[in-house]
Amino acid sequence: MTKGLKPWRVLESKEVLDGRPRLIVANHTVELPDGRRVEDFWKIQMFDYVVVAAWDEADRLIVERQYKHGPERVCLTLVAGAIEAGEEPLAAAKRELLEETGHQAPDWTGLGRYVVGANAGIGHAHFFKARGARLVQPANSGDLEEMRIEHLDRARVRQALAEGEFAMVSCAATLALALLEGDRRGGD
Amino acid sequence: MTKGLKPWRVLESKEVLDGRPRLIVANHTVELPDGRRVEDFWKIQMFDYVVVAAWDEADRLIVERQYKHGPERVCLTLVAGAIEAGEEPLAAAKRELLEETGHQAPDWTGLGRYVVGANAGIGHAHFFKARGARLVQPANSGDLEEMRIEHLDRARVRQALAEGEFAMVSCAATLALALLEGDRRGGD
Repeated sequence: MTKGLKPWRVLESKEVLDGRPRLIVANHTVELPDGRRVEDFWKIQMFDYVVVAAWDEADRLIVERQYKHGPERVCLTLVAGAIEAGEEPLAAAKRELLEETGHQAPDWTGLGRYVVGANAGIGHAHFFKARGARLVQPANSGDLEEMRIEHLDRARVRQALAEGEFAMVSCAATLALALLEGDRRGGD
Repeated sequence: MTKGLKPWRVLESKEVLDGRPRLIVANHTVELPDGRRVEDFWKIQMFDYVVVAAWDEADRLIVERQYKHGPERVCLTLVAGAIEAGEEPLAAAKRELLEETGHQAPDWTGLGRYVVGANAGIGHAHFFKARGARLVQPANSGDLEEMRIEHLDRARVRQALAEGEFAMVSCAATLALALLEGDRRGGD
């Protein structure tokens, strides 16, 4: 299917900002398949992360309401967090669900792995859906933010999504993919 | 709904990388609502962009197969591009559809505006769905990439999405939101 479409060749990669372990910015000089040379192409490296659309035993979505410094406002987010060194994405998803909300779930579905920046790279996001989550311990995220856990029924989820309460691309993506996956299975 | 949840206060913002007009990296020192001070918080500024899930008159999704330097592989993408200075997001979406694929569409639906980075910001993505697109002129994207335009029927779209052919978060988000929106309207 990819016949005739060739990758670019990186002629030079120069690190211009070292914010390890959370940020590295490099400048690439690349050669296109037709031989053209392009300078000054930004590549960014941040952490890989997971996002989880988790439904509880009463079929309500578990969300967090909190201030986020990306959108610079209080908004709804899903369970999410960075994958630790050597950690499997699914293990990170289960850990974040437990840490942030105190819930565990018996039923997990992978919704894919995607790159954040079409050109700059930035990192990979791994999306999951969990069903049947139930409270097993107090929530204790250790995050910088104070947050409020809420449980939203189906109608409220659709409303929040339509009204832009989920401020981030990754949350909207995970939620929409999770809802689609449910539609396809003819259930949740 | 947001009672008791307060925004962070930026005490200091220091620009550490000037890649204008395409990239600015700053370092924030912020104060949390509980008074804690956090240094070394990365904020990134890139361009805002649009992504379009465009269906043609035969109800096939218009996609582009091309090498992207974010995922560093040949993959499927939707129509997408940066919003120009002073341009409305919908105008940018119509311009990109015409430039990249030579199509125009009579029927547009906004699927929301989302921030790319939960913490770093990075930029805003505006998602759209277009229906009834038809070819009015030759495609001429002027992009760096060589690309191949393909038209996928519904079954093929679901398969491509499930198999990770859409490599980018923004494409997966736009497509899933567009498919959900169609489900809700009881059609496409």
